[in-house]
Amino acid sequence: MRDFLPAEKARREAILTVIRDVYRAHGFDEIETPVAEDSERLHAGLGGDNEKLAYGILKRGLTRDDLQAATAPLELADLGLRFDLTVPLARFYASHRAELPAVFRAIQIAPVWRAERPQKGRYRQFVQCDIDILGEPGPLAEAELLVASLDALDALGLNDGFIRVNDRRLLIGMLTTLGFAESEFDGVLITIDKLDKIAQPGVIAELRERGVTPAAVDALEEFFRRPTTKEFLPFGEAAIRKALPANPNTDALAGLVAIGDAVLAARGADPDASLLRFDPFLVRGMGYYTGPIFELAHPSVDYSLGGGGRYDGMIGRFLGTEVPATGFSLGFERLVDLVTLTAAEGADAVALLHDADVPLGELMSLKAALIAEGSRVRLVVRPKNTKPTLEALAIEGFTRFAFVSGGSTAASIDLRPLTQTSQP
Amino acid sequence: MRDFLPAEKARREAILTVIRDVYRAHGFDEIETPVAEDSERLHAGLGGDNEKLAYGILKRGLTRDDLQAATAPLELADLGLRFDLTVPLARFYASHRAELPAVFRAIQIAPVWRAERPQKGRYRQFVQCDIDILGEPGPLAEAELLVASLDALDALGLNDGFIRVNDRRLLIGMLTTLGFAESEFDGVLITIDKLDKIAQPGVIAELRERGVTPAAVDALEEFFRRPTTKEFLPFGEAAIRKALPANPNTDALAGLVAIGDAVLAARGADPDASLLRFDPFLVRGMGYYTGPIFELAHPSVDYSLGGGGRYDGMIGRFLGTEVPATGFSLGFERLVDLVTLTAAEGADAVALLHDADVPLGELMSLKAALIAEGSRVRLVVRPKNTKPTLEALAIEGFTRFAFVSGGSTAASIDLRPLTQTSQP
Repeated sequence: MRDFLPAEKARREAILTVIRDVYRAHGFDEIETPVAEDSERLHAGLGGDNEKLAYGILKRGLTRDDLQAATAPLELADLGLRFDLTVPLARFYASHRAELPAVFRAIQIAPVWRAERPQKGRYRQFVQCDIDILGEPGPLAEAELLVASLDALDALGLNDGFIRVNDRRLLIGMLTTLGFAESEFDGVLITIDKLDKIAQPGVIAELRERGVTPAAVDALEEFFRRPTTKEFLPFGEAAIRKALPANPNTDALAGLVAIGDAVLAARGADPDASLLRFDPFLVRGMGYYTGPIFELAHPSVDYSLGGGGRYDGMIGRFLGTEVPATGFSLGFERLVDLVTLTAAEGADAVALLHDADVPLGELMSLKAALIAEGSRVRLVVRPKNTKPTLEALAIEGFTRFAFVSGGSTAASIDLRPLTQTSQP
Repeated sequence: MRDFLPAEKARREAILTVIRDVYRAHGFDEIETPVAEDSERLHAGLGGDNEKLAYGILKRGLTRDDLQAATAPLELADLGLRFDLTVPLARFYASHRAELPAVFRAIQIAPVWRAERPQKGRYRQFVQCDIDILGEPGPLAEAELLVASLDALDALGLNDGFIRVNDRRLLIGMLTTLGFAESEFDGVLITIDKLDKIAQPGVIAELRERGVTPAAVDALEEFFRRPTTKEFLPFGEAAIRKALPANPNTDALAGLVAIGDAVLAARGADPDASLLRFDPFLVRGMGYYTGPIFELAHPSVDYSLGGGGRYDGMIGRFLGTEVPATGFSLGFERLVDLVTLTAAEGADAVALLHDADVPLGELMSLKAALIAEGSRVRLVVRPKNTKPTLEALAIEGFTRFAFVSGGSTAASIDLRPLTQTSQP
């Protein structure tokens, strides 16, 4: 877990403000849930491997006897820190459905916690940035999610973002056609999900080693040999059909085509442009996905900048009634590393370097007068050598400064511009 | 712990933005620390009674044997959720001092957690809104805190805020003069702190019951009988002397007078106005206060809207070197209940009520065109009876609407104003 100093905190907030404003423009509304959820809910099988990484919160008032009587740590924790924002959203929606619009477009920007081993780029507390549409079963929902996400990326100065697309039903269809047994699907998908890391020969080797149906592995190896298996353009029905070993599920195919058309229309993009790319091997880890799945990519990096998909079954687990749902999560921590946006300049910022003996009342009324004019004001005791102080203030974003001795007023002080090369 | 639906979330964020902007104008910088701190640090005696309310986070990888071997729950928790923002700030400053300005003015706006029994107005997760000045030993620090806090209150539409002021050293001097034994101070202060609830006779009765030095209790009872013991105006040396049973600590007195002069100068307030009020019985619960202490009050409510004080000893506990420190915490959850501010209107918001058969591409490019013009846009399937939908949209803050059928473009749709009385 990390501390954020002023400059980094301001930069993170500026990036979040850009994202939040784009999402709001696209008709999404921000909500907030508590950081803790019932342990039972966090461990209901909806969080995949992340459930194992959930931090438990110790019950209150436990006695030594309670500790002795416990057979597993989880029995001592009735609450836990959320590991994602999807399980809390499902619980939120189940609790408040009557107060929400029939189609509810949610923004959640908030920290989540996972008990990861400390390693570079992995944090135990990190911010997730999710949008979800609940109550809309059709491809309009996916189109809105994807356009909003691409627009957010643009607004952060990352144009040329593109989206890898697949559908869980097409994945299942492909595995069936290739001859894998249904009981093998989950394991095979876990291996295929490693394609980026271990490449095609690695996938085949791992599948053989795991002893799944040999004829199916042979068929997959053969299928891999086709001229292009990763990207089929222009995005559309022909490309998707060509990328798959057999006739695809009709609903899934129609859905993806509709999503693609709508996204291209909204973005004014050429169908030949590679804004959407069908990837028959895109898996997405979470088991709860039921339909279209996607990942956001950018030519400048070889990792995903976000992803999501349709999870029509999950809300029903909490509500009892099925509610269609689809969501998209921006990889905020990765974006922070990539985006060059700095904190908005905002108001004029003035540093008053005052002699130590200036009466407090004078200093404070001077400060108040400048604040009233719209400036941000910092009081600094004037050091003997002012140069390093002025340089540091300029780096911090202060734009003007003045020296203040006793008897100064807002009218009498000499405000001078402050730049990183200012010489007093 | 609470969920926040869109309207309430927007209102809370709008209030926080007002507060944050005022604090930034006053030269404070926002930082962020993780929600969890080491248990050892949370239970170091710096959090007073709040330490008992800290949630522990279960260690990872505990076995059944570990549970059996534990003699107390805390042994199973190496981390805990912070119960305030002061202990984390002290730890933050000790870690990052070299990267921070010599006088560091911090903003922290973040949730804290306390295992309170659920009751009206008490939450287990709530937002604190703190400013602190580290590295400034003199009254300028307190003056900056108080003026910034009063300005924040003004900006929220709560003018006429005022501040009750005291100093820990004056409290101790008073107790000494009245004849309490030093070993009795802590207990006596706990009782005096209940003055607002149980009034003077209640305080005297409780002290007698607790068996503290009877002559001192008699002296306090006598002292209570003076014409005015609660507020002495105009704020200044004479008033403070008059409010105390004996000559006060000189440093404490000079500090309070200087703070008062500076606050009045900055606010352009008449010294006869009751902006600052000396309260010889203001205690503030936390044991770590060492100098001036204050509470923010408003005529519209009989509870405090915030408070703070100087805690010069605390940073040294983490850093080894003494660093002067003083802070002020706004009671954000109380302010939310009081402030009538609603979420900023912001951009024009358009609802597009579309027929279910409008092609998605048309809908999405229409939406994109309006977003590009600066509007917030929500797509809504047109219901048979549009009136309740339009009314609900108006309440949500949407300002215009249009009906959309197939073949519509941004140029062809008829955007109409949406008010709570709109008739389709």
